[in-house]
Amino acid sequence: MAAAPVWSVDPRTGKQREQVAVEATAQEVDAAVRAAHDARGALTDRTVRAAFLRTAADELEAAKDQLVEAADAETALGPVRLTGELARTCYQLRAFAGIVDEGAFLDVVVNHPDDTATPPIPDLRRYKLPLGVVAVYSASNFPFAFSVAGGDTASALAAGCPVVVKAHPDHPGLSELVAKVLRRAAARHDLPEGVLGLVHGFEAGIELIKHPQVAAAGFTGSIRGGRALFDAAAARPVPIPFHGELGSLNPVVVTEAAAAERGEAIGAGLAGSMTLGVGQFCVKPGLVLAPAGAAGDTLVKSLTDAVSNTDAGVLLDHRMRDNFVAGVAERAGLPDVESPVTPGAGGEHTVSAGFLTVPASRLAQAGEHDLLLEECFGPVTVVARYADEAEVRDVLSRLPGNLTATVQLSDGEAAGEGRGAELVRELTPLAGRVLVNGWPTGVAVAAAQHHGGPYPATTSTSTSVGGTAIERWMRPVAYQAVPEALLPAELQDDNPLGLPRRFNGRLER
Amino acid sequence: MAAAPVWSVDPRTGKQREQVAVEATAQEVDAAVRAAHDARGALTDRTVRAAFLRTAADELEAAKDQLVEAADAETALGPVRLTGELARTCYQLRAFAGIVDEGAFLDVVVNHPDDTATPPIPDLRRYKLPLGVVAVYSASNFPFAFSVAGGDTASALAAGCPVVVKAHPDHPGLSELVAKVLRRAAARHDLPEGVLGLVHGFEAGIELIKHPQVAAAGFTGSIRGGRALFDAAAARPVPIPFHGELGSLNPVVVTEAAAAERGEAIGAGLAGSMTLGVGQFCVKPGLVLAPAGAAGDTLVKSLTDAVSNTDAGVLLDHRMRDNFVAGVAERAGLPDVESPVTPGAGGEHTVSAGFLTVPASRLAQAGEHDLLLEECFGPVTVVARYADEAEVRDVLSRLPGNLTATVQLSDGEAAGEGRGAELVRELTPLAGRVLVNGWPTGVAVAAAQHHGGPYPATTSTSTSVGGTAIERWMRPVAYQAVPEALLPAELQDDNPLGLPRRFNGRLER
Repeated sequence: MAAAPVWSVDPRTGKQREQVAVEATAQEVDAAVRAAHDARGALTDRTVRAAFLRTAADELEAAKDQLVEAADAETALGPVRLTGELARTCYQLRAFAGIVDEGAFLDVVVNHPDDTATPPIPDLRRYKLPLGVVAVYSASNFPFAFSVAGGDTASALAAGCPVVVKAHPDHPGLSELVAKVLRRAAARHDLPEGVLGLVHGFEAGIELIKHPQVAAAGFTGSIRGGRALFDAAAARPVPIPFHGELGSLNPVVVTEAAAAERGEAIGAGLAGSMTLGVGQFCVKPGLVLAPAGAAGDTLVKSLTDAVSNTDAGVLLDHRMRDNFVAGVAERAGLPDVESPVTPGAGGEHTVSAGFLTVPASRLAQAGEHDLLLEECFGPVTVVARYADEAEVRDVLSRLPGNLTATVQLSDGEAAGEGRGAELVRELTPLAGRVLVNGWPTGVAVAAAQHHGGPYPATTSTSTSVGGTAIERWMRPVAYQAVPEALLPAELQDDNPLGLPRRFNGRLER
Repeated sequence: MAAAPVWSVDPRTGKQREQVAVEATAQEVDAAVRAAHDARGALTDRTVRAAFLRTAADELEAAKDQLVEAADAETALGPVRLTGELARTCYQLRAFAGIVDEGAFLDVVVNHPDDTATPPIPDLRRYKLPLGVVAVYSASNFPFAFSVAGGDTASALAAGCPVVVKAHPDHPGLSELVAKVLRRAAARHDLPEGVLGLVHGFEAGIELIKHPQVAAAGFTGSIRGGRALFDAAAARPVPIPFHGELGSLNPVVVTEAAAAERGEAIGAGLAGSMTLGVGQFCVKPGLVLAPAGAAGDTLVKSLTDAVSNTDAGVLLDHRMRDNFVAGVAERAGLPDVESPVTPGAGGEHTVSAGFLTVPASRLAQAGEHDLLLEECFGPVTVVARYADEAEVRDVLSRLPGNLTATVQLSDGEAAGEGRGAELVRELTPLAGRVLVNGWPTGVAVAAAQHHGGPYPATTSTSTSVGGTAIERWMRPVAYQAVPEALLPAELQDDNPLGLPRRFNGRLER
């Protein structure tokens, strides 16, 4: 039987560009995982890991023109955005190199014997080890930052875990190119190719999550696909951690005072955020609670003007386009839903941005309008007009978990007047990141970042962006009464590696 | 339909002592979870939480005589052990109070805006929040330390999570008493009763894990029971973290040099560890790799003498006794297995400690002897005699995950000669705690402790003992561009609570 071909497709035309790979058979998945498993030892040295990550960033930058062109041909995201995303990806690789250098992520804790404790404490020393081979399921919408060389891969390699990537079918050609760049960087540090495997194909993705030598997985994608893989990870004879980012509505609450003070600016800001990248962001604001009445009208008017002036755009693939067109039509057809700017099909291969409005009371209890509380991938948002604070509370109480929750406050509320603090408190249980007077699109790579949230935003309590993403790929081990001569350097009393640690209760940094 | 009675049973006679409760109906489970959910806000204040944990320890100590008597009547573990275990439990509650006071577990990270980053970093501040109601499934074998007031409960309350405990049927009367003590302590701090719920019954345990308001679970028990609950937690519409400690063989490797140097002491030490608490410890050494030949013979002789002199003991319940008697008989009946001291039924209600020997070569590949690689709860261990290092490696490669792995080394090996360091490295992937020249029984409560390990030792990478156990019940949240006036005190620039934190990349302690 011939291997199934993997085609690179131009989303601007829907036409196949070229065959760039074949789908991996079960045997090929097994070979990739075994090669990764065999490469574990090569990643033990933190100095080598950090250098590898930095070289990977250098090599990606050196190949920038080729990579951006390849990415644009397969995603239609445009060279400006893609150049920025590649820069972000390189920054991220270097940020994780810095984290590897610092070593705080090893969580070193040393307890000398203490006979006064109940029971007595023997000599105990704890730190964290890499879990093993990590499976990474790439996203469609960030062909660099959440794909082959993205945050999951960077954090796993930083942790010391080899990676096998399941390529996203929307950019298989780019995935091959990026994997080659990473392997070239690995070779510069005498690391085996197996530190970064790449497989194509839906079935290969299933084989991968079931492989006994896969120790953990990262995923960014849809609720349906992510939940299926989560379930498979949990059903294994030996279950493994599955860190999936599945979907998010990203609610925004606009207070009456904020709308009165700067309704026009909020409408314009919202338009920019919801249409950024043709609305294909996990953190796109998908539900906006805006006041009924004149102040809210100003916001809607401004949003109408800005969205009307947005060019039609190309989505990442034609399946997404079909889903978008059908999804917005179904939503627009619900009772009491209006479409000040009708979203839907643009040209033959494009979609037009738009938004819907609905009385918030329609969302306050279960019913057909619940569809508006489900993410609709693409350039659309829903503005729910509320009559009073009780309606806001009712709608918020019905939301599933989110990556972000945002509140637009007036200057006075931001300074502590009125309901500002209360709203921040109310939004906190809903999301992993809470914003005031900003927009959720744009996810900074920082130690304090958290890109995750209550299910279905993520399937775990971890983050896929920012310094702490490395924690997902580690497990602790404690050494009891192990003589100094046999201890790893990380745990020795004199701290030869200069690691931050907790030493006999005292935090040493 | 009458509520199913819950009986307290005397394991020394197998007779029912008294009815102490009834099994919780689905409605009663729901009521307990709702009460816990409503109590979340009351646990927000860290000062109150710490004080509550200390008062709980004080109150448990004040009720010591009554509690130890009740525990002994239901578990037959004896007043000496139980008094020690209660002291450990109180120490643990106070240790978590100290952790709450210090606040490092909140993982505060602050990033001021940084326009030089790619993409630019806005003001971002991250810390951790309690997950919500925690379900705790008590263990049979530690009626204090891994039960109603044990490590799961203490760490969850410390995190700010109300708890609903599923009582273990082997000590339902004690569970009721301890729950009352905890609620009395809660009342002293004006905390609602709902911070600590208690339910009885197998079905109630299933209802509990499925309840939408339960946010996470901790479990200590068997592989079968734990896996069923793990599966239920993963299959929920909204899956939740399930931290289960399921089973462990706890391998011990004795080097040829160690056996030659102190085979007699090792045999005696092993006898003490494997019969402690009538062999009913999760960290009981269940497989010992000892050299064939004279040095190993000395070890076996010493073990024989010590185990022969061990009194028959009462197991926690008659089902366990039946399983033990059947389990050791089945193991002893395997080809090439010998029983220098035959384990099995003692008197009508007791069991006798013993151990089996087998050539290590019998365990080097899959077959009927794999039964010897499964945990057998009770006072029995298996000594596998190896001919060479290759056999040791072969057997180790076949082991499932463990809570602990131990190596007995000679003085020279402990000082760095020979295979000492190599063996420590080889044991590390197998377990969560690695010991040299000690015994795994006795699990200290310390910051550097790790009581967990690769599946099936635990279902997650977390620990159920020691300071970091609190991490299981928290999730991070990041605040973006939230004005100082609306920020929780934990995240304010001037650090009014004096928390350890990472501030603009610098570790402040």
